[in-house]
Formats: sequence, structure tokens, C-alpha cells
Amino acid sequence: MKPGTRLRSSFLATDSAVRKDSRGVPFLSLKLVDRTGSVDALMWRLPDELLKGLPSPVYVDIEGQTHEYRGTLQVKVERLKILRQEDVSEEDYLPTTEKDRLALAEEILLAGRGFENEHLRDLFDSMVSDDDFWEAFCEAPAAKGMHHARIGGLLEHSVSCLKIASALAEVYPVDRDLMLFGAIFHDVGKVRELAWSGGGFSYTTEGRLLGHVVLGERIVASYVAALPGFPEELALRISHVLLSHQGEIEYGSPERPKTLEALLVHLVDNLDARAAMYLESTANVGPGGWSHHDNPLGRALYVPEE
Amino acid sequence: MKPGTRLRSSFLATDSAVRKDSRGVPFLSLKLVDRTGSVDALMWRLPDELLKGLPSPVYVDIEGQTHEYRGTLQVKVERLKILRQEDVSEEDYLPTTEKDRLALAEEILLAGRGFENEHLRDLFDSMVSDDDFWEAFCEAPAAKGMHHARIGGLLEHSVSCLKIASALAEVYPVDRDLMLFGAIFHDVGKVRELAWSGGGFSYTTEGRLLGHVVLGERIVASYVAALPGFPEELALRISHVLLSHQGEIEYGSPERPKTLEALLVHLVDNLDARAAMYLESTANVGPGGWSHHDNPLGRALYVPEE
Amino acid sequence: MKPGTRLRSSFLATDSAVRKDSRGVPFLSLKLVDRTGSVDALMWRLPDELLKGLPSPVYVDIEGQTHEYRGTLQVKVERLKILRQEDVSEEDYLPTTEKDRLALAEEILLAGRGFENEHLRDLFDSMVSDDDFWEAFCEAPAAKGMHHARIGGLLEHSVSCLKIASALAEVYPVDRDLMLFGAIFHDVGKVRELAWSGGGFSYTTEGRLLGHVVLGERIVASYVAALPGFPEELALRISHVLLSHQGEIEYGSPERPKTLEALLVHLVDNLDARAAMYLESTANVGPGGWSHHDNPLGRALYVPEE
Amino acid sequence: MKPGTRLRSSFLATDSAVRKDSRGVPFLSLKLVDRTGSVDALMWRLPDELLKGLPSPVYVDIEGQTHEYRGTLQVKVERLKILRQEDVSEEDYLPTTEKDRLALAEEILLAGRGFENEHLRDLFDSMVSDDDFWEAFCEAPAAKGMHHARIGGLLEHSVSCLKIASALAEVYPVDRDLMLFGAIFHDVGKVRELAWSGGGFSYTTEGRLLGHVVLGERIVASYVAALPGFPEELALRISHVLLSHQGEIEYGSPERPKTLEALLVHLVDNLDARAAMYLESTANVGPGGWSHHDNPLGRALYVPEE
Amino acid sequence: MKPGTRLRSSFLATDSAVRKDSRGVPFLSLKLVDRTGSVDALMWRLPDELLKGLPSPVYVDIEGQTHEYRGTLQVKVERLKILRQEDVSEEDYLPTTEKDRLALAEEILLAGRGFENEHLRDLFDSMVSDDDFWEAFCEAPAAKGMHHARIGGLLEHSVSCLKIASALAEVYPVDRDLMLFGAIFHDVGKVRELAWSGGGFSYTTEGRLLGHVVLGERIVASYVAALPGFPEELALRISHVLLSHQGEIEYGSPERPKTLEALLVHLVDNLDARAAMYLESTANVGPGGWSHHDNPLGRALYVPEE
Amino acid sequence: MKPGTRLRSSFLATDSAVRKDSRGVPFLSLKLVDRTGSVDALMWRLPDELLKGLPSPVYVDIEGQTHEYRGTLQVKVERLKILRQEDVSEEDYLPTTEKDRLALAEEILLAGRGFENEHLRDLFDSMVSDDDFWEAFCEAPAAKGMHHARIGGLLEHSVSCLKIASALAEVYPVDRDLMLFGAIFHDVGKVRELAWSGGGFSYTTEGRLLGHVVLGERIVASYVAALPGFPEELALRISHVLLSHQGEIEYGSPERPKTLEALLVHLVDNLDARAAMYLESTANVGPGGWSHHDNPLGRALYVPEE
Repeated sequence: MKPGTRLRSSFLATDSAVRKDSRGVPFLSLKLVDRTGSVDALMWRLPDELLKGLPSPVYVDIEGQTHEYRGTLQVKVERLKILRQEDVSEEDYLPTTEKDRLALAEEILLAGRGFENEHLRDLFDSMVSDDDFWEAFCEAPAAKGMHHARIGGLLEHSVSCLKIASALAEVYPVDRDLMLFGAIFHDVGKVRELAWSGGGFSYTTEGRLLGHVVLGERIVASYVAALPGFPEELALRISHVLLSHQGEIEYGSPERPKTLEALLVHLVDNLDARAAMYLESTANVGPGGWSHHDNPLGRALYVPEE
Repeated sequence: MKPGTRLRSSFLATDSAVRKDSRGVPFLSLKLVDRTGSVDALMWRLPDELLKGLPSPVYVDIEGQTHEYRGTLQVKVERLKILRQEDVSEEDYLPTTEKDRLALAEEILLAGRGFENEHLRDLFDSMVSDDDFWEAFCEAPAAKGMHHARIGGLLEHSVSCLKIASALAEVYPVDRDLMLFGAIFHDVGKVRELAWSGGGFSYTTEGRLLGHVVLGERIVASYVAALPGFPEELALRISHVLLSHQGEIEYGSPERPKTLEALLVHLVDNLDARAAMYLESTANVGPGGWSHHDNPLGRALYVPEE
Repeated sequence: MKPGTRLRSSFLATDSAVRKDSRGVPFLSLKLVDRTGSVDALMWRLPDELLKGLPSPVYVDIEGQTHEYRGTLQVKVERLKILRQEDVSEEDYLPTTEKDRLALAEEILLAGRGFENEHLRDLFDSMVSDDDFWEAFCEAPAAKGMHHARIGGLLEHSVSCLKIASALAEVYPVDRDLMLFGAIFHDVGKVRELAWSGGGFSYTTEGRLLGHVVLGERIVASYVAALPGFPEELALRISHVLLSHQGEIEYGSPERPKTLEALLVHLVDNLDARAAMYLESTANVGPGGWSHHDNPLGRALYVPEE
Repeated sequence: MKPGTRLRSSFLATDSAVRKDSRGVPFLSLKLVDRTGSVDALMWRLPDELLKGLPSPVYVDIEGQTHEYRGTLQVKVERLKILRQEDVSEEDYLPTTEKDRLALAEEILLAGRGFENEHLRDLFDSMVSDDDFWEAFCEAPAAKGMHHARIGGLLEHSVSCLKIASALAEVYPVDRDLMLFGAIFHDVGKVRELAWSGGGFSYTTEGRLLGHVVLGERIVASYVAALPGFPEELALRISHVLLSHQGEIEYGSPERPKTLEALLVHLVDNLDARAAMYLESTANVGPGGWSHHDNPLGRALYVPEE
Repeated sequence: MKPGTRLRSSFLATDSAVRKDSRGVPFLSLKLVDRTGSVDALMWRLPDELLKGLPSPVYVDIEGQTHEYRGTLQVKVERLKILRQEDVSEEDYLPTTEKDRLALAEEILLAGRGFENEHLRDLFDSMVSDDDFWEAFCEAPAAKGMHHARIGGLLEHSVSCLKIASALAEVYPVDRDLMLFGAIFHDVGKVRELAWSGGGFSYTTEGRLLGHVVLGERIVASYVAALPGFPEELALRISHVLLSHQGEIEYGSPERPKTLEALLVHLVDNLDARAAMYLESTANVGPGGWSHHDNPLGRALYVPEE
Repeated sequence: MKPGTRLRSSFLATDSAVRKDSRGVPFLSLKLVDRTGSVDALMWRLPDELLKGLPSPVYVDIEGQTHEYRGTLQVKVERLKILRQEDVSEEDYLPTTEKDRLALAEEILLAGRGFENEHLRDLFDSMVSDDDFWEAFCEAPAAKGMHHARIGGLLEHSVSCLKIASALAEVYPVDRDLMLFGAIFHDVGKVRELAWSGGGFSYTTEGRLLGHVVLGERIVASYVAALPGFPEELALRISHVLLSHQGEIEYGSPERPKTLEALLVHLVDNLDARAAMYLESTANVGPGGWSHHDNPLGRALYVPEE
């Protein structure tokens, strides 16, 4: 969306409230969410039935115009109709990656099938051949909020980490296959920590009691256990990469990274997460503008003038 | 040992150094260690071969007298002979619990066999019937230093936790069997995190890469997996107790305690650990005396006058 | 209260607001408080005079039905009448322990009268014989919020600590009488830090300027000063238990515990406080449900399925 | 002492060690302490009886020359004779303020006798008229290390705080008498927390169990209790100034400053302590030089070129 | 304003909301802001057009009466008229120092012109002779919130720091001119970090990207660069004072204070800031009353009874 | 060096001490340093002149054999001769990068000359054309300890950061030229913070008073100032990248990264620093071995078995 375009579409409306402007005129402020993200919106000349505001959240059909306010894109709503829940399909309003999930998955498959270490290649194959697992991996969000909180977000994050890890393998004397495996699957526990059906993202009971760090190590360990003759030392190094990927004990890793591969997987994970926080927090901010303070990086972020 | 007793015995001598007293006379200061603990010692009138000090650590045979100095027990050594390593049996000098290990183990067996929940009783039985595991559990130290760092220390710590947990089960509306199971086995990962053969306590490679929290949960989960029909919810609650027993994420638990049993097991573990730190740090301090600052509690500790 | 029971009673209504459901229908959400605790409530089909909500807080008479929503008990209100303040007696709506305060007090008296140390027994007697003090002690809440924030809460907390301390006296080589005295009276400063008349719990000016830690030590020291021949060393050890019971300097103790009794009193205080936080935060949560995040333990808490 | 002066005097020698220079020649390095402070020293051409070093600490008579090394003053020792403990008087070697203690005490007496508030003036009088107390106050060190760790150090620190507080009373709308009283006596608990007889500074048992914050408030409260008709509100404000003067709970104050007088007394105490840390850590550093890192401010400190 | 005075004036009304009292009667609660500060206000008997509240913020003309409620001054509004933005001049409602700015500036000019060090005197002259700079310095707020957030606030803060620094120069062996220069100009970067036109205080883009610490050092360094023959060592010491004045790295100083002047400038800055926080947070609190918790000092503050 | 090779060379010997083995036989333990790094060494059968140890540090000529002990490479010294300082050239013993500095510099020149932004290209040209600056940049260590503490270390670190940043420019929508410029020059302040002549690495007075963060920004800003017409917005963004590259305020950046380029430069700097800490701390550790705990990462590091 750019400033000055005409908009007619349906959204999930959240955070709605009726306020008054400096002349005392009431207006409706709300957030419009769909698969592609969210945008702030305002509506003046409220019909009587909207004077007391909207139930929140609710599905709406709106007509309006985009414009820019203090460097951030907004929608000026002209008409608004409430939709009945039975007339919408909830998954149309779940934030979803804009990238091609098949193409992303292909990048991972290509990398894994190219491993030189046959044990890691077998392990990788057994995982991506398990349809239930692989489908979940390609669909899961990478988080409930924070960054990559969208259908396909885990896949996106994993592919970015894979790309950066591939570059690092040219710079440092590292076990390339193990590092790439870790870059791809460090967050695999998210497929069981999070649930993404039913109109939103939430934590599972298992996720809250065990956490994605341990769940991820368990998932991979179960595929390893099914491969006879898998080297013990390699299994230990894989488990270490998965358990230590939060980098510090106070961020939820029971041990800190003690091998070069574990250290680099952690640093790559952190780098991509923070870059995504910047990009997602400034998504609607125009050149020379500043984001809100209240984002996962905890500071106002600047989008330079071009 | 009390002040004023005659001593003739062999020890492992550590931390030795030759210093001079305020009149300029050289003396040897050292620490004497055996199965029962350690004590500071001093020797004056050094024969020529001791003027340059002792190799450290070394096994020695000594003769002397105990006395009290600034509230702390010391040994005044009169004769000292270096022993050859081949003439001693190293395990005689490994700190070892002074309690009766069979009696301690019996207390645990009694508690476990009295579980009302048949699944927990079966799980307990399958663990204590595994001779290799049970022998290791009864022999392991509870730590490399800090507290209960002695052969049988894990057993001692587990029994104390069991006793306190039994009392708490009378005070709070808790799942008694699960809490007792957690009190007994929360630190079970120590049997693989630590090694105690070869003349000392050390970390294993597996222990340093995965940590006792995850290793303990893995051990119990493997016994659970071998019991057909074990309830999933119960297995999840057991895993949660084990993973969360450090209490806070920054102390190495990937999740904090979120059930009452997990919370209480953590608090009991912490209570017994701190009580042991006090008792071990003041072991040689007499009435009205103060321990050194440099102990696991990080402060000088007071032994009141009687 | 269980799901599915009929309710007709008066309460203090707090946190009320008019919201709309997903079909746009307005409803009233509120919290109902009385001596026994609090419960969330909802009311649909609002009469006109409630469409703009309730003043808050206000005393109300309600009629309705209990049910369970996402694992937590709620009240569905059918009729609601506002009461005039002059028609209610405020103390009927102050949260109050459900336990028998006389029986709790008797447990403490029994323990204190059984002290073997005559000085501690005399000190105890002089305190419980001071009617103004003893009445205040049996009535005071243990906190303004957090845990045991109810009439009789200090008594409840002190009795739980006494029970646990009695069990610990069987496990550790401790001065039993001093530890029990500390378990009973460590929080005694609350009787001057907090005020509980006038329809709620609040801090006194003295409480905010000096704090319950110092006020408690002062109270006990004044009884000690009135007992001729009280041993100085014992008085010092009592003061240390009281001043150090927060356990760490950053939690408000000017010195950390340096005797075994002080250390254990702190740990018991902490244990009972945290157990109470769990129990109070999950009071209305059913099997398999989760509490809110926003409680004194700072995390969602799980009530296992049975 | 300036570089290039001849020195012949007796000292307490501490921290001595025999090292070798870059040509392999052995030399003795030591620290020379007397009432006026301490200085680093070196001795080459060691007589045989010094080749194995000095007992430490020991009293010595030395002859030598001062010089500057990397911006810091040192002594090059030429002759060194060990003194027998019975031939020295220990207090001659206790660090002692170089200022005139009588004059310092006079500044305090002048200020206190000028209080306009008669209750504070009476309280002040009762304290300084108590000879035992006042003598101890004028003799005590302000700390065991850190800053003002010398006989008369508490007096020096109190006078500096008094001067600064007097200036602040011109800038802020404050209760002048109360602030000056607090500036003078905030650290009064040191007279019971520390002991300074017997050749050094040490903590008392009472000091370690209760701490100088509470001990100081107790001392003043006992003088208040002896004054009939002393206003309760004023007594409370005095106690608050004393208890809160560490400024933050994590520095040992059970409550943080909540009145303007308490806030300013804390800030003045902190300011003078830090200034003293700078001055004491750079005492022997010449223009353009840097102190060691290892001082109470935790960083190398610069003495500018003139 | 004192309780019981009649009020008729115009204000900026902020934080307005319609609530109900305990009898269910609606009232308007708001905050009234003008150049002299702000005060809480309430209005009952609302005319129809106010039943839905006020747009916020809005300029209003009010008539009412002051009174005291729980120790804090409030305004009871009787009449309220909304003003049109074009009828008010925004700067009349920007908080502004109540002190005489010319007199404050004169104190600084007097101090700077009295410097004995000719280089510092020249530097000072070149700065105050730069009309654009000097005007901005005399107008700027010292902060966006926290303390001295008013037109002329930087000047006020600088003069208080100057006064205290002058007193310290009598107590410590310090380079007086450099310390006074630092006391005056340590916060000079605020003139570029903050903007104060357009009806409020805000951060500039430059301020958010570089911060006032670095901007201030840059400003002074640019005047230094224009003075031929300015001593390098002095320039370095000035830069150090400016860069280190936050005192600790975690408060935004890239290096901590390492000279005595830098240390004292930091401590004086901190002292005046905290005193101002106390005074501004208790501005409307009467004797024996407590401020809100929610202020820059993070605790309720007490105004003693007289 | 590999285990089992014969060694005959000269080194700087540091950390030497005479100890005794478990049979009481004295041996010399020391560290051998030259341009390529350092290695631990031991010598038995000490000639008389070595029985009292070595002056430390001292230049030596040694003959010996390499071997492996607990997974770490050591040297067993057979002959050792002390060299006179005048016979060695100190720079031969300063740790120096093993990489080809000309080739590294060429990589940077290639990148900078390829900038599409002409202003950044001009800025880059003006910097690398300044021979004094460019020579210092190619020679400086990147730190005094921690990582890349060797001649050419800054160059090595900058080239690694450049490589990684180039890869990131393919992944994120970033201003490529600015990010590469920042990757190359973020640590440029090290050329003035550190001194590396005179036989070792040390901090300059300017470095300790202003720090490398501010010094680096000053260096680049001075080249910018010399380029007429350089865009202000770009200059501001460059300064922000340099000032914020420590990432967090508590690590010495006066502001945190608020643009994507600044964020990524910080993350790349951190990533390469940590990877270097791993590699340098495990330089002498063989397969399956563990490093010491005491390294910049603060944990024992594992070198996997092959």
C-alpha cells in the first residue's frame, strides 16, 4: 500500500476506540489486519451505530483511502460494514508470509540434499520425508509476536539463517554441514510450542511446560534414534547446537554454545531475528519517519530519507 | 575432631605453601583431605627437604595435634612423610558421606514403594530395579563443589529433599506422589553430568554440552517410554518438574515452575542446598567463630556461642 | 463455588466496564469481592441504567449462575441492584481468611509455650500476653497484595511457616526454639506497616518510612528490653533473624542471613509465600486450565488435569 | 613525600615479595605503611637474609630515597632492619587522618549548637555530651577499606558532608537543621560496626549481624528516647534519614529516601565518598599519571598535567 | 495556589475522562496545564455537551475553587468553556520557569567572566557571545520530562549546578575553573537534542541518532577549534568532562569520569536532577501528604508535617 | 605446530614459575610467545641457575619437543638460554597476523572503490589516500586483549566484517554502501585508542578519556568536513553507525542502533568478535579437547573429535 491509493476490502478490525479530535468531533480509531499485515485506520462522520464503537475484534468490510501521517501510512475509512463471523474464513485474516513458500522450502531441500556428511544427509532426509512434520514446519509461525509471527514465518526465518550461515562457512573453519543443519532446524521446536489453527497464534500446554528449546532437541533426537549407526559424537553435537541456540542461559538455553557451530548458529539466529524486528516495526513508516517506541527492539527506529 | 586431640593418619595434602611468621620463621601451611572432609594444618621446625614446600597435591602420612585458632579447628603437624602414589588407594581420599548409604537408599525405596499412583510406582520400580542406574545414583556426588560434593552426596541430598517434601505434603494441597518423585529424582542428571572415578570429581563432555537438567529429564523419559500405557499428561508433568527445578531461567531451567509440584520441588532443592552450604562452610568453626567469606553463600557465616 | 450453582448474595463490585460481544451486543464485565475472595462476572441484557456502566467500586446485590469459561470459574449475573454505602458494613467485604483464626492462634500458642529455652519462652509469653499486640497480630493481613492479603493472613502465613520449620528442625542441627520463634514472628512488623481499617488495606506513614523489616525488629527488641537478664547474644541472634529474613539485601534486608536459623527462616518464609501465590492465582482455575500471566509469580500457572 | 627526598624511618611492611628484574637480578618489592598512608617500595642488592623475602606484615626500619616511576611515587630502599613487635607501638602505624581532629570536632559542635530547632539541638547536645560516644565518634574510621579508612576518618567524612549540606541548604527549600544533623550523623553506626584497636580495622560480630545502617538508627533512637516530649514526627523523620542514607535498597537501606532531607543526605554522603576514593587512589600519582585499575572506583584514574 | 482560593483562568486541559462517583453521579476529571505547572481538577453537574467528555488536549477557560484532597491540591471546576486553537497563543501554555531568566543568565556570565584560566575564559566568552547559541541555551528545557522540563529549565539546572560546584571548590583540591565550566555546560547538547517550538517538547532526529552527550561535546569542541593556541591537554579534559557526565556507561556516557573535575560534575548533575524530581513531584502535595508512586524517582514521596 | 615436532627457536617467555611434580621433582612452567601466537611449555632437569625461576618476561632461546597433554599442545623444553634485550628486536615478538596484510588491504580497497554512492566513494578515497591514517589502520591491533590483539588485527577483523556484510546485503533491503563502509570502519577509533610501539599493546591517555567509539566518529567526521557538499543526512547516518556499533548503551555506545545499517554493522561486529574469541581460545586444543574456562567467552570451549 502507498499513500493516495483507493482501498476496498475486508479485514479483521482490532484495537478500536471512539475518540474526539481537537474540535471535539468524535472519530473511530482502529487497526485493520489481514494476511499481508496490519495498518492503522481512522473514520470520521460516524453513523449512529458506530458512535459507541466496535466490538473488538470483529470482521469488517471497509472502503477508504490511504494517506501518510507523521511519516506513517494510515487508512481514512469512508464506509464500514460489520461482517458475521460465519461469513468469513478465519485463515484469510491470519498474517501469512508474502513469499512463495514452495520456493523457500525448495531452498532448504536443496541445501540439505547437498550435505557431504552422509549421516546428516540421512537425518535431513528422514525429517523432510515425514510429511506431517515437514508440512507443519513449512506452515508454522516463528513466534507468537516479536518477529516472523505469520504463517510460513518459521520457514522464512530458517531460509534467511541458512543463507547467512552459508556465507559464514566461507569465512570460518567450521563443520559446514552441521552449521547449515543447525541454521535450518534450530527453531524446529516451534512446531510443537505454538498452535496456529483457530483464528490466531497461541502457545500449547506442552509448549508452556517444556519450551521450544527442549521440544526441538527432542524432535531431532527422535529422528536420530531411528537411524541405526548414527555416530554418538555427532548426535551430541547436534543436540548441543539445538539446546544452546538461545546463546545465553538467561534467554532459555540450559547450556551456552561451546562449539563453533553452536556459537555461529546462535549468532545467526539472533541477527536475523533483530533484522526482522527492524523491518516489521518500520513496515508502514515512510522516508525520514520514526516508528513507535513500543516494538520488540524497545526504541524508536528511523527510516532514512532517500 | 575436637581441639586438643592427638592425630596420626594419612591424608591428601593440598594447597600447601611455605610462609614466614611475624618473627621471620618459615612454616608450612597446607590442607589435609580424607574421606571425612578437610582441615587446615600448619607445620613449624621444617626439615630441610620441606623448606621449599610440597608438591601439590600429594599423599602424606602425618602426626600432630589439633587446636583451635580464631574459632576454627586446625592441625599442628609434628611429623610429615610423603607417600608414593602407588602405595595409596585413591578412593580412600575421595570425600565420602559419613552417613550409612544403605539406610539412606532404604528411605527412598520405602517412599517410592508407597506411592499410591500406580504409574509413578511402576516408573519408580523400573528405575531402582535397573542395577547400573541405581548403583550410580547411590554413589554419585551431588555437585563438583558448592554442596554435597562427596561420594553418596546425591543420595544424601535426595533423602533430605524427600523428608522436607513429605512434610510439605501435609501443608499444601499437592499431588503427593509426584512431588516426592520430583524431590527424589530432580538432580538425577548428575549421574551423567559428573564423573567420580580417577581420584576426583569432574564434568563429562556430555555434561558440559547438555547439562544435568536436560540429561535428567532424558533419563526419566527413557524409563517412561518403556512403560506401555503411561499417561501422557503425567509424563508431561514429570518432565516439567525435572526441567524447571532450577527455578529460574537464569539458573539453567529452560522453563520456570508452573505447577505447584514443580514449584515446591524447586524450593525444597534450593533450601537443602543452602542449608548444606552453611553446614559445610562452618564444619570446622567453633562457637562464636566466623567462617571465611569465600564460600558458596558468598558471606562470612556465624556459629553462635552456646 | 462450583460451576453450575445458583448464586444470590451481596458483593463489592470492582473493575466494572461495559463492552460488546462479537455480535455487537453490550455486556457488563465486573469483579465480585467478598470476605471469601473474588470472582469474575458478566451480565448481558443490561437494563438502561446499567448501559453506561457502574461506579467503581460499589456495593451490589446480585442474582445469577456460576459456570466455567476456558477453565476459569465465572458468574453470569441475571439481576443486579446497587446498595447504598450506609446499608452495608464494610468489614463484611474485606477479604478474610477462611480458616479458624482461634485454632490457628492456638497452634502458635502451643508451640511457643513448649519452648525449652526459658528466655525465649518468657519473651514469647510477654508478647502474646500483650492483648493489643496479640489481637493485632491475629487480625493483620500479611501483605497489601501479593499473598495472604486478607484479614488473618499474617496468622495463616505464620502458622504455615511454623509447621514447615518444625519439620526442618528434624532434618538440620539447628537451635529449634530460635528457628520456631523466627518462623512465627519474622513478619511481625506488618502489624505497624499496614493498616486494615476503613474498608481496605494500606501502608501507614511509618510503614513507608521505616519498612516492616526494621519495625518488626523494633517491636521484638522492645519486649526483650523489658525482660531483665535476657542474654545479649540471644537478643543479637533474634534481631539478626528478623532483620535478615528477606534473604537478600536487594529485597530489603540490611544484612543477609549469616546463622543457620536466620537462613532457614528466610527460606521457609519464601517457600510459603510462593506456594500461596500459586494457590491464590489459580483459585478459580479448573483442571487443565491456565491462570493469567499477570500475577505475583509473573507467569501463567497450570492446574493439571486430574 | 616528593620525588628525590632522603628517607629514614620505620614502617609496617606489607605485601612483600622477592622478584627478578629483566636481567635476572633479584629485588624485594614491598609496601610501606605508617600513620600518614602507604607507598610502594623496592630494594636491590639484597643481603642474604632477605633473599627469601620478608615475613608479612612486619615492622621495619628503612633508609632510602624517593623517586617517581611511571608517574607514581616509589621508595628505593637502601638499608632495611626488621624490628621486634615488642619494640613498636602498633597505633603509630595505624593510618590516621592528617587533619586536626580537635578542629574538625569543633566545626561539628559549632554547627550543632547553632540548630534553630530546639529538639534537634537538645538531641545533639545529649549525644556530644556523652563522652564515651563522642570520643568514639571522633576516633572511628569511616570504613574498613574503600574510603576514609583511618583513625578520625569518620570525623573527616562527617565534616565534609556537613560543609556540602550547608551549601545545599542555600539552594533547596529544605529543613536545614534536620539535613545538617543527618549529614553529621548518617554514618554514626560505624562506631559499633567497626573495631579499631589491636593493630588494625575489623568488623564486630554485632556489625556483621546487624550492619551500620540499623546500628546507627538504634544509637540515635536511644538518645531520642531519653528526651521527654521529643516530637514523634521528627523522630520518625530522623530515623528515616538514617535508615535510607545508602540511597538504594540494594546498597543496604531497607527503605529508599522519601523526604528531601533524606534524599540530599544520601547524595552528599555518596558525593564525598566518591571524591575521597579518587583522592586516596591518586595520592601517590604525579601529573600526567594514571592510578592502578584496582581501586574502589574500579577504573584507572587520571591526574592531569599541570 | 493555596487551598480555598477562587480561580478564573485559561489552561490546556489534558488527560480528561468522565467517571462516576460512588453514588453513580458522573463527573469530569482532567489536568489543567499552563506556564506555571499543572494541577488535577474535577467537575460535577456536567452540562449535556460535556457528558461525553472533552477532546484531549484542548484549551479551556475555567472558573472554580481550589481545595485539598488527601493532602494534594485540586481544583473544583464550576464553569468550563472550550477555546478555539486560533484564539490562544500556544507558548502561553508551555511550562516555563518561574524564575527570572535574565538574573539566572547573569549568574552564569559573572562566574564565567571570573575564570582565572584565560583559555577557559576565552572559550566561555566565545560561547556566550554567539547570540544564536546563547539565546537557545537560555530558552531550552533541560529534558523532555523527568526534571526541569520547561522553558528556561536548562538555565535553571545549570545555575543550581554552578552554585553547588562553587561550594565544592572550597572542599576539594580541584581545578575550580574547569569544574565550574563543566557544571555550567555539561548538558549543553540539550539545545540540539530537543526542540521546543510548536506547542511542546520533542526530540530532534539528530538528538535521537547521536544523543545529547556527544552533541554537547561537539558543540564545545567546535568553539575550542576556533581558538588558536588552545592547550590540547585542556581541550581533552573538557571533552572528558562532557562525555563522562552521565557517570556510568549504562546511563549513556561512553567513558566513566576519570578526573576529579569530571567525577564531581557528574555527581552535582545527578544531585540537582534528583532534588528537582522530588520538588516537582511534590509540588501540589500538602504537609503530611504523599505523592503518587508514578514519578521519575519511582516511589511515593513524603512531605513532612510542619 | 603439531605434536611430536622438534623445535629450536627464540621466544618471549612469560608467566614462568618453578613448581614440583607429584614425586617432588621441581620443574619450570612458562609460556612461549612470538609473532605467531603463544604456547604453554614445561622444563624438567633444571640447571642450578634456573632452580629459582626466570625473570618475567624475558627473551629466551629454547630447544625442545612438542607434545599433547589433555588435548592441548605443549612444549617440553630441553635447553633454554636467556637472551639479552639488546640482542633481540622487540617487534619480532609482538603477536602479528599470519595473514597477508597487503592482500587484506586490497580487499578493502576493492570494496570501497566499488561504492555506487559517490559521496561515500569520495569519503573512502580521502581516507585511504591519507598515508599516515591508512598505514596506522593496516597496522593497528583490534584490541588490547579479548580478540584480534595482534599487529594487523584491526585489518583482519575489518575484512571479515566486510565479507559478512556483503552477504547480508543480498538478504536484507539495506543501503549496501553505507553498511559496507560501516563494516570496514566501525572500529577505526582503535588507531588512536591503542598504542602498539614499545614492545606491547597499551591504551593512550586520549583512548582512556574519550574511548574508541567517540574517537572513531571524530576521525570520520573530520574527513567528511573536508568534503564540500557532503549530504548532511548521510553524514548523520554515518556518525550514527559509528557511535552505535557497540549495540547497547551498557557496552559503551551513547545511542543504540536505530537504522538497519547501524543494527547490522553492530551484529556483524559482534559475530566476528565472538567467532575470533572461540578460535583464539582453542588454538592449541586438539580434537575432543576442552579449552580453559578463563577466556573472553567465559566458558570452557569444545573442539569436537573428527
